[in-house]
Amino acid sequence: MKIQVVENVQKVNDEVAAENRAELRARGVASVNLMGSPGCGKTAWLERTLEVLTAEMGVGVITGDLTTTRDAERIEDFTPHVVQINTGRGCHLEAHQVRQGLQRLDLDALDLLVIENVGNLICPVSWDLGQDRKVGMFSVTEGDDKPAKHPYVVLAADLILLNKIDLLPHVRFSRERFQEDVRAIRGDMDVLDVSATEGTGMDTWIDWLRTLAPATGTGQVVGAKTTD
Amino acid sequence: MKIQVVENVQKVNDEVAAENRAELRARGVASVNLMGSPGCGKTAWLERTLEVLTAEMGVGVITGDLTTTRDAERIEDFTPHVVQINTGRGCHLEAHQVRQGLQRLDLDALDLLVIENVGNLICPVSWDLGQDRKVGMFSVTEGDDKPAKHPYVVLAADLILLNKIDLLPHVRFSRERFQEDVRAIRGDMDVLDVSATEGTGMDTWIDWLRTLAPATGTGQVVGAKTTD
Repeated sequence: MKIQVVENVQKVNDEVAAENRAELRARGVASVNLMGSPGCGKTAWLERTLEVLTAEMGVGVITGDLTTTRDAERIEDFTPHVVQINTGRGCHLEAHQVRQGLQRLDLDALDLLVIENVGNLICPVSWDLGQDRKVGMFSVTEGDDKPAKHPYVVLAADLILLNKIDLLPHVRFSRERFQEDVRAIRGDMDVLDVSATEGTGMDTWIDWLRTLAPATGTGQVVGAKTTD
Repeated sequence: MKIQVVENVQKVNDEVAAENRAELRARGVASVNLMGSPGCGKTAWLERTLEVLTAEMGVGVITGDLTTTRDAERIEDFTPHVVQINTGRGCHLEAHQVRQGLQRLDLDALDLLVIENVGNLICPVSWDLGQDRKVGMFSVTEGDDKPAKHPYVVLAADLILLNKIDLLPHVRFSRERFQEDVRAIRGDMDVLDVSATEGTGMDTWIDWLRTLAPATGTGQVVGAKTTD
């Protein structure tokens, strides 16, 4: 009984996600679903990203949190295209919430949408939102064992960001062990070392985003693939 | 439909949690449910705790992770009384899993059981495991906005630990803002600054645990109250 109901909820979610995906593509908006632990630095990294990227393309953000509008307030300093979703006790964003977000955004003004998921390494992984790409963020302060202990985010992601790389001298963290564990889960996975504080890795990240949403104004998503 | 089924699952969980609580009390074992983000330092803090506490009382640990036995292997260096629970894709421990853990532990050898929940600030909060006390752990590297963004763990907890306090000079974190947000949620909440790396706060923490499980060998839990 329980399983069947959960499957139904997932099925409805996947249908709405497919609608989101179709609409975003029709409107020429590439999309990224950014997932990571509470405090891994998703919002700080987004701030730095917007600082660079809004000069060349329209970027919107849907940001999920249990409560508060703190993330949206921070993002608003960089782009007017931002919607805060409060999930209450919900541990992840669902497609219908993103759908509501899309309805409140001026999609014609956007080339790229970043969906900052609720801070959680587990639940967001299982819910398709209609995004083109999933990005998983870890940070060195969380310890080098997190990919091994949270393999599903590594399996689901198209790119792994390792944030707070500037704090490496101050914590016990083996970069090699982290990489080995990621490789054991997904041999083909790219890991990009980044620092929201110092801007490390930003050029490579921006280039990666550009391949999703070339700032041509034509609104074509190049090389988009379906993830779920 | 969905809500009713979820309620049934919660109801069954609460019944098993009550059985766990009754058994632990009958056997004279105090219990703590430790909750926090992935990488906030739960296991490292437990290692330091066991280093001190096992000299004066029997301490067991049930540790929850999606996968791997890495935490149990670390804990095993300090106490033989450890059970690793793998939840698969489950984002929290449930009472029936703790029940299975209890069946594999020698409860007569224990005065205190620490249940280290799955790394997640959201889902564990809603599931009673039968513990006497809930402890919420944050860390300074996660940012000072986490209590405001995750108020339910603050509402549920009996004590908040703020870990990695030794890293304060290296991160942007307002200790005042953190405290204000905690107070706005729970005016009566104690926050204890700790460092697993340097041992900061260990004496106070050990004293707090001693009030739960006085190392008298009589096995009486003093001042235990029910949390759920």
